Amino acid sequence: MIICRTINELRQAIRKHRAEHVDNKVGFVPTMGYLHRGHASLLERARTDCSLVVLSIFVNPLQFGPNEDFERYPRDEQRDLELARSAGTDIVFLPQVSEMYPAPTKTIVTVAGVTERLCGASRPGHFDGVATVVTKLLNMAQPDFAYFGMKDAQQVAVIEQMVYDLNMPVTIVPCPTLREADGLALSSRNVYLSEEERRQAVVLSAALNDAEAFMRGEATVTPDQLQAAVVERIQSAPLARIDYADVLSYPSLEPIESFEGVDRIIVALAVKFGKTRLIDNRILHIHA
Amino acid sequence: MIICRTINELRQAIRKHRAEHVDNKVGFVPTMGYLHRGHASLLERARTDCSLVVLSIFVNPLQFGPNEDFERYPRDEQRDLELARSAGTDIVFLPQVSEMYPAPTKTIVTVAGVTERLCGASRPGHFDGVATVVTKLLNMAQPDFAYFGMKDAQQVAVIEQMVYDLNMPVTIVPCPTLREADGLALSSRNVYLSEEERRQAVVLSAALNDAEAFMRGEATVTPDQLQAAVVERIQSAPLARIDYADVLSYPSLEPIESFEGVDRIIVALAVKFGKTRLIDNRILHIHA
Repeated sequence: MIICRTINELRQAIRKHRAEHVDNKVGFVPTMGYLHRGHASLLERARTDCSLVVLSIFVNPLQFGPNEDFERYPRDEQRDLELARSAGTDIVFLPQVSEMYPAPTKTIVTVAGVTERLCGASRPGHFDGVATVVTKLLNMAQPDFAYFGMKDAQQVAVIEQMVYDLNMPVTIVPCPTLREADGLALSSRNVYLSEEERRQAVVLSAALNDAEAFMRGEATVTPDQLQAAVVERIQSAPLARIDYADVLSYPSLEPIESFEGVDRIIVALAVKFGKTRLIDNRILHIHA
Repeated sequence: MIICRTINELRQAIRKHRAEHVDNKVGFVPTMGYLHRGHASLLERARTDCSLVVLSIFVNPLQFGPNEDFERYPRDEQRDLELARSAGTDIVFLPQVSEMYPAPTKTIVTVAGVTERLCGASRPGHFDGVATVVTKLLNMAQPDFAYFGMKDAQQVAVIEQMVYDLNMPVTIVPCPTLREADGLALSSRNVYLSEEERRQAVVLSAALNDAEAFMRGEATVTPDQLQAAVVERIQSAPLARIDYADVLSYPSLEPIESFEGVDRIIVALAVKFGKTRLIDNRILHIHA
């Protein structure tokens, strides 16, 4: 496994692979590190599809708000390298902030529409930071495929829209969310949770299970009723404070007044436990 | 010469060249058509540097304001193809608006700083449109080199900043402005000028010559005095209406109060004759 700390090293390593392998396919997994089985599943998927698997680990300051957890975001390079190696990674790109942003960027990539709600509303500037750093990373690695976890469903929607609008020469591959045995979605931020918070955090996936059952069971139900049921379930956890719990059309992420003419919806949650903000979501097909 | 009207055709033609030529270099000249000797000089430069010369002709609606000349911008496909052929072009990309924007783009590339003044100030949104379409075209053609004329000096500054910030894998090659015998900078918009306007339009290059002589001749001069001299000269043409006539640092395009500690300046002009807006500029080295 090659470790690259500069953009030049990364480009040279990928160029070398492309030159030496006629049927080369480069798969890219951009992450913020503190890797878990969810990240491993992205790397394993890339390993199946591609001749070269490139992982980037970079906690991107541009996508954190001034009162968010950029400084305390968990980092563990040695553990990450071990997980990367055992998931079959060929190249790890580990840049410093000064390598990614030698000067404050004057160029920003902005995606409208899908960023208006959910995390786009509660974390202003967040998706500008995501779109800009993903553009930079894609321009550095020039992969054929890039892999993203569906836990960040809005991030996937933003990146798919950006790739479509800007004709980026890459295929985005969304991959399923991985979960703990009790249903909690895997996240690097789970490490922030106290024991009691961790116990109650299962309420996110429980509420999404409720939503799925609710949609199967009720003959006539409105998006508002579905949302109310989800909110009620989350509020059953005393430590949970809801940032949002929304029912939107998918993949356009727009509010809906009824399920009529709607093909798919997303139930999307952001819930705080203490200082820790967790997200989760489920995409449901509407059967008329 | 291959003519491509779809993105897929363009990508296939370039991919074919890359596959068939080991030492391939792709040179790209993005234009809005109605080609003149200035464009030909870009194509000839690309011909010298590269194994494949790709020209795009696309009048980009995104960079025109609501009261600007998008509809009446001059177009002449047959003449353009003849000029392209004789300048040694290999591939011409001629997309319709519906091919470039199958849906209104939700993604915009914005460059701050260098866009605050000059055309950025007098044409709001213009450089967002330029940065976004150039990003799209670069993602389609994936060239090694892209060629731009220095008549649009601010456009070059915007694109160089964007390529730097977003780590785009391309080298931008700025090329000198070409001029008519009397000094008028070549521009597709020159065709709009009446006979009398055309006669008086020489005042732009004359004012830039004045500026150069002024900087050589005066022992102590301020940016304000230089600007005043340029404005006075332009106003000697009765039909000229100044949009801007500015003296800024180069390449940062910021206002300066004195020439002390300044390495290079740009004298940048936008002047209207009737409905026609002409631009021109000169970059001058400051000798302490």
